[in-house]
Amino acid sequence: MKFCSVCGAPVSQRVPAGDSLLRYVCTACDTIHYRNPRLVVGSLPEWGERILLCRRAIEPSYGKWTLPAGFMENGETVAHAAIRETSEEACARIALDDLFSLISVPHIDQVHVIYRAHLLDLDFAAGEETLELRLFSENEIPWDDIAFRTIHLTLRHYFADRRAGRFRFHEETISPPLSPQQDAR
Amino acid sequence: MKFCSVCGAPVSQRVPAGDSLLRYVCTACDTIHYRNPRLVVGSLPEWGERILLCRRAIEPSYGKWTLPAGFMENGETVAHAAIRETSEEACARIALDDLFSLISVPHIDQVHVIYRAHLLDLDFAAGEETLELRLFSENEIPWDDIAFRTIHLTLRHYFADRRAGRFRFHEETISPPLSPQQDAR
Repeated sequence: MKFCSVCGAPVSQRVPAGDSLLRYVCTACDTIHYRNPRLVVGSLPEWGERILLCRRAIEPSYGKWTLPAGFMENGETVAHAAIRETSEEACARIALDDLFSLISVPHIDQVHVIYRAHLLDLDFAAGEETLELRLFSENEIPWDDIAFRTIHLTLRHYFADRRAGRFRFHEETISPPLSPQQDAR
Repeated sequence: MKFCSVCGAPVSQRVPAGDSLLRYVCTACDTIHYRNPRLVVGSLPEWGERILLCRRAIEPSYGKWTLPAGFMENGETVAHAAIRETSEEACARIALDDLFSLISVPHIDQVHVIYRAHLLDLDFAAGEETLELRLFSENEIPWDDIAFRTIHLTLRHYFADRRAGRFRFHEETISPPLSPQQDAR
């Protein structure tokens, strides 16, 4: 951020009165430009014993498998965001079950939220950001080719809970990757 | 938003290629300025049978009672945000228990998240945004003077769960107020 989105003048970084953090503040109109974490919302769609994964057609993690998920938009609920992202990425119709995981990813200023869901039919198809879709049973999951650590963790919890016979809500934190080569999410 | 925060040129509203929503896009450098919902995070601090409420020293809802909560900051986890806000508004030390409520408030582009927590001591004190603090038992809760509908709903769930002998996780949506005079949150 270099310029004020309200008046177009340059911004500088300073700690506003009554605050304790550096903020971008307009040098002309004094508007404080707060920046806050973003929510990434998606679903874990079931069809019987199998779950639906999407192979990504975009970076980051092009070609890797993930759950349908994306940035929550203004004006929608968390539940709507999950249904919309599943529709956009997998052209799939789902009914949401309980919220399943909420994972903070502080080094990239994101919070990832995934619902359990079930497919209403098998008429899914790859959306613009998806190369292909496939239903996987537990022993088919491509664990080494999962796009993001939040999704890997969510899937591990899902199958562990399923084996235990009870789904719980999972709150977690993902720490920074060990090297820049690793997945940043 | 009138100007691009990257280059300072005017922005216009249009639907970018591959998108379906109106975005602010820079007329000079083509940067797309996405806007996303913000997380408001806080705690419901218990001390035995009583819970801690803060009376607000700022608008909106000056003088009304609320739980310690505020906007999550970049670089922190949801849990850290709850502990920090409780420290800032109530100067209180807490240990977090389970995440208790997650409430979408789509008409103001917010998601409110509250943890159950317990006070580690009684050395709390009003922070800069708080007029006074008080521990309330259930029959003392000032139901008609609660600052926000998300807090009202969270408190109702809390006492209902406590009477039922089991705390559950609650996901909800708050719809727009019936009139502009009502609390916008």
